[in-house]
Amino acid sequence: MSTKINVGVIGLGRMGRVYATYLASRVQNARLVAVADRHMDLAESFSKDFNIPRWYRSHEGLLADAEVHAVAVLTSTASHKGVVIDAAKAGKAIFCEKPIAMSVEDAEEMLAEVSKSGVLFQPGFQRRFDAGYIAAKTQIEQGTIGTPVVLTSTSRDPYRPPLEFCNPAVSGGLIADMGIHDFDLARMYMGDVKSIFATGGTLAYPEMKEIGDIDNAIINLTFESGGLGAVHLSRNAVFGDDIRTEIWGTKGSLQIGYFRQTPLLVMTKAGISHDVVPYFMERFENAYLAQVESFIDAILNGREPAVSGSDAVEAIRLSLAATLSCREHRVVELDGGKMPGAFSA
Amino acid sequence: MSTKINVGVIGLGRMGRVYATYLASRVQNARLVAVADRHMDLAESFSKDFNIPRWYRSHEGLLADAEVHAVAVLTSTASHKGVVIDAAKAGKAIFCEKPIAMSVEDAEEMLAEVSKSGVLFQPGFQRRFDAGYIAAKTQIEQGTIGTPVVLTSTSRDPYRPPLEFCNPAVSGGLIADMGIHDFDLARMYMGDVKSIFATGGTLAYPEMKEIGDIDNAIINLTFESGGLGAVHLSRNAVFGDDIRTEIWGTKGSLQIGYFRQTPLLVMTKAGISHDVVPYFMERFENAYLAQVESFIDAILNGREPAVSGSDAVEAIRLSLAATLSCREHRVVELDGGKMPGAFSA
Amino acid sequence: MSTKINVGVIGLGRMGRVYATYLASRVQNARLVAVADRHMDLAESFSKDFNIPRWYRSHEGLLADAEVHAVAVLTSTASHKGVVIDAAKAGKAIFCEKPIAMSVEDAEEMLAEVSKSGVLFQPGFQRRFDAGYIAAKTQIEQGTIGTPVVLTSTSRDPYRPPLEFCNPAVSGGLIADMGIHDFDLARMYMGDVKSIFATGGTLAYPEMKEIGDIDNAIINLTFESGGLGAVHLSRNAVFGDDIRTEIWGTKGSLQIGYFRQTPLLVMTKAGISHDVVPYFMERFENAYLAQVESFIDAILNGREPAVSGSDAVEAIRLSLAATLSCREHRVVELDGGKMPGAFSA
Amino acid sequence: MSTKINVGVIGLGRMGRVYATYLASRVQNARLVAVADRHMDLAESFSKDFNIPRWYRSHEGLLADAEVHAVAVLTSTASHKGVVIDAAKAGKAIFCEKPIAMSVEDAEEMLAEVSKSGVLFQPGFQRRFDAGYIAAKTQIEQGTIGTPVVLTSTSRDPYRPPLEFCNPAVSGGLIADMGIHDFDLARMYMGDVKSIFATGGTLAYPEMKEIGDIDNAIINLTFESGGLGAVHLSRNAVFGDDIRTEIWGTKGSLQIGYFRQTPLLVMTKAGISHDVVPYFMERFENAYLAQVESFIDAILNGREPAVSGSDAVEAIRLSLAATLSCREHRVVELDGGKMPGAFSA
Repeated sequence: MSTKINVGVIGLGRMGRVYATYLASRVQNARLVAVADRHMDLAESFSKDFNIPRWYRSHEGLLADAEVHAVAVLTSTASHKGVVIDAAKAGKAIFCEKPIAMSVEDAEEMLAEVSKSGVLFQPGFQRRFDAGYIAAKTQIEQGTIGTPVVLTSTSRDPYRPPLEFCNPAVSGGLIADMGIHDFDLARMYMGDVKSIFATGGTLAYPEMKEIGDIDNAIINLTFESGGLGAVHLSRNAVFGDDIRTEIWGTKGSLQIGYFRQTPLLVMTKAGISHDVVPYFMERFENAYLAQVESFIDAILNGREPAVSGSDAVEAIRLSLAATLSCREHRVVELDGGKMPGAFSA
Repeated sequence: MSTKINVGVIGLGRMGRVYATYLASRVQNARLVAVADRHMDLAESFSKDFNIPRWYRSHEGLLADAEVHAVAVLTSTASHKGVVIDAAKAGKAIFCEKPIAMSVEDAEEMLAEVSKSGVLFQPGFQRRFDAGYIAAKTQIEQGTIGTPVVLTSTSRDPYRPPLEFCNPAVSGGLIADMGIHDFDLARMYMGDVKSIFATGGTLAYPEMKEIGDIDNAIINLTFESGGLGAVHLSRNAVFGDDIRTEIWGTKGSLQIGYFRQTPLLVMTKAGISHDVVPYFMERFENAYLAQVESFIDAILNGREPAVSGSDAVEAIRLSLAATLSCREHRVVELDGGKMPGAFSA
Repeated sequence: MSTKINVGVIGLGRMGRVYATYLASRVQNARLVAVADRHMDLAESFSKDFNIPRWYRSHEGLLADAEVHAVAVLTSTASHKGVVIDAAKAGKAIFCEKPIAMSVEDAEEMLAEVSKSGVLFQPGFQRRFDAGYIAAKTQIEQGTIGTPVVLTSTSRDPYRPPLEFCNPAVSGGLIADMGIHDFDLARMYMGDVKSIFATGGTLAYPEMKEIGDIDNAIINLTFESGGLGAVHLSRNAVFGDDIRTEIWGTKGSLQIGYFRQTPLLVMTKAGISHDVVPYFMERFENAYLAQVESFIDAILNGREPAVSGSDAVEAIRLSLAATLSCREHRVVELDGGKMPGAFSA
Repeated sequence: MSTKINVGVIGLGRMGRVYATYLASRVQNARLVAVADRHMDLAESFSKDFNIPRWYRSHEGLLADAEVHAVAVLTSTASHKGVVIDAAKAGKAIFCEKPIAMSVEDAEEMLAEVSKSGVLFQPGFQRRFDAGYIAAKTQIEQGTIGTPVVLTSTSRDPYRPPLEFCNPAVSGGLIADMGIHDFDLARMYMGDVKSIFATGGTLAYPEMKEIGDIDNAIINLTFESGGLGAVHLSRNAVFGDDIRTEIWGTKGSLQIGYFRQTPLLVMTKAGISHDVVPYFMERFENAYLAQVESFIDAILNGREPAVSGSDAVEAIRLSLAATLSCREHRVVELDGGKMPGAFSA
């Protein structure tokens, strides 16, 4: 049907399959016409399960498919740069999962090619599409809390990922992997960051020291506006997923987040108890769906994507600055956007 | 694909469109191949929007479609009997929204035909498929609360439906329309009901008196086990949808339900506030989906449906008994299941 | 000091000691000058512990004490009548714990003597002095919820009292002992009751059958206004004390009550849990204090007591009607206030 | 009576009157026999209101009173040193409100005199006596959350104090005035602090700039154990008092704190709302009482006070370090306890 966008998904790892499933069945204006993964079996079996017309071993194959109008890039972070540049050259609209690159330089190179090709580019920050974060933004715009002056943003996972995934060379480390969401929210609600100070430690999983990563961090932000912020990161919220943001204004405050998954209280002599959102996928299921719907709608309606390429660059810059601050135990000033280095440096 | 069930939806009113949308896109093992509605335009336009192959003006047309293996009956309650009997004769597996009939006699006649035809029949009670109610059942089976002895079940809508829908001749009236869910849960958690006493009134919407319906009711139940129950019904929970069930056992208690829709607290000098689940569709979106998935899976796997025809009959019987009790201001004994009359009597 | 009221406490059982302690130390305008209890040791030891000037073996002794201006009657319900009548004759201001008598006739006889003597009389209904119930009343008066049309009031204790205390001959039975609070609230928020239907059972403590009492009850009320009500009573809220009232109006609703005692959430792999208010004394500690302060202030300021004698009579009448309804499994009409019998009948 | 401790209260400002009221009526083992305040009227009128036998214009007068066994020092922080040293020389047991001094040097001088005189000394940190903080400590000791590795502690007031009170020369400034409680808790739950980094700003009340104070701060802590901490301070939690502490361990987490003051939910079309604890006095009323009871019990039973003098010194040291860090925008190492300067420097 002419009003649907033909989409290809590149990369069928954990998140790739999530996006592909949504695009295959739940995004009304999208038609998933192709998938690609280096592991041919994965692409083929997924295609069969979901009646996807075509599958490819390489992203080049999928990008050469003239039926594909837009791509969702869900490969490993390290490979984003090559895939996105190729996709831009192929003239496809591009959705790219966060972080879009391992360094600011790489990210800027990608965006330069996107700009040259004139294709639509939307980086992945699904929290921006969650009902709670959207409602908070609306409340701020309506003046409910006056001027926002302090933000705290918390991301605590219930357990550490497999060590091969934690490896800073792959993930950028705790601060980049988890904090990038909070840095993006910090910019969205509070504006540009002026300075960063981060502390971290390997406190719950000694084995993470071997791969050079930390499992907890607290990051102090000052904003250009004079406002203050704190980002709390952890891999050991063992009870479940703890994703919260608080915004404090001159006239009121907002708290975003929730804990309980199942609407059941169990009340015994041991007290009253309930379960907890188990992981970010359950927490943000609807947000992931809304995000990819937003991407498709931007293409269909010829409007700017809801998140810009520079949002992605700035979140990387802050992640790098915080990582550097944590490593060198010193305040890092974000003066004029200069921030050398990369996650794996 | 051979593992998908071809389904037809009969009736494209409010709930019909909900089920049809789910069957069209979100139920993995179903393929929506036909829809029928007396309003031809509705069937045709829905079919085009969702790429449904065929549409019909009459349920007979759809039932004659050999490609259709199963039907979801979402027509008005008064027409359920004819459609279900025709569908059974046509050999289709049948899902029928609650209440399946306006009287116990009609319901039993339908089930007799279903039984004769040997088709699978599942009545609609979506709460049984909600995560909270399921988790409560699991907790009871695990012995967490000992023996359940008291149940309170609450259904309060934020506003009254349009008067033509409230009309007892169409809906059966407040007690039947809303309470049937609570009666079904009461039986599920507590077993057979022994006596009923109901009080009701038209307290919030004077205009409902003209159509002969009430807008609030409190219903007292005793169970064959000796246990006690109460059902609270209202059309004026103006803040939002209030759907709760509490089960009290000898060793503990369970509370099912929740209020907040958006994960945001707004904190100002006026206090702390949050929004509320607006209506039953938002509350039970996932349950409706799980219910129709359960129906499809029962067909695919040749197993008994999760809810039986006699569950549907008994919930009607209790609704009628409560309606009668309310009208005559007296205790009604459910002795041996005799309960004359029908909703519209 | 001239601005303090000299008070005597009659009866030093569980509640008597609570009131005496408050009067001894926490009620600014009261001076506890005497206590009386049939068990001389109790009166003497309490007096020594709290520096109370005088103690008595009999209420007659205390009532003859010219220094005593007001008395708090905390003896067993069965003895209230005699003590209150003697106190009225002695010209003392009287606070009497609920229920003030075992029958409407006794209560009316007591109030007649109070009236003849012209002394101030305040029956005990401490919930009226709890911050939540007071705030609810204020909200209703401000019109926040429009016209109140439905009330549910819940009193669930975590365990049964000792059998000798449960005995209906002493306590009046579950409905009188616990429900009287809810009946009083029902009248306060909704006005006069028109009819009552009650069901009950001995469901959690088989041993209570031997003393002829039930441990759970659900009571259906209709009000003269047309409004509806339900009272839920239980002895087996094993997790803690469950005292809640909900009031539903045409424009909004109110929920009074809370569960958590200690401000601590414990979050582990087992979920999130917290403790619960253990018993009514913890729940209503401040309300008991405020109640006795209100009594003293009424004396000091020469104003009407916050709760009237007829409030006490009506709550007894409703308790008796509900007990009768439960016993005979039929609706009881409160026509014109005739309600024969007594709790122990 | 011989088992009561005769206490004198020095300083009858806001907190002085609170302590004096508690000692006058609610602390069973204390007898308030004297009060002193430079404003003779205040001491005299309070004495008359509460039947306190004697009053003084100077602390010297009260300290010379041989009937006084213990004193509670509630004068301004700047005067604590002189009063405490005089009280120690007079041989009185001493309770001193936090912070006990404006500098580490002063505090150590005071403790030296206390030690020389051999009197009991307890500094004021009432949160340690709050049920939530106590229960959290118990849970940690029971191993519920494994090893505590991260702490966040929040103190947000609903409004700024009068400017004359905010003045850093008097109060020590925001970080000292409010954060000292959180620093004390941090030490209690996590052990010694290794480094501090603080950021702050005058974000909500521009007029506070004139007196040289800030109204918001976020303070990053590292502990000797390797653990991490954050302290959040604000004067503009305009909705009410926000006092929370979260402790994250390797096996679970604890959240201490609550928001709602009155047990009432108001549910209208605007959503569900409730009020909030208005200020720290309401939040910690019971804790203040328990604290002074603990002081009296320590004297009576000849045991160590629940909080030590060195706890008071270390909390001052951390407050000074955080204030310095905030001023100089740099990390401050707590190496070996050297921390020059004082609050008013």
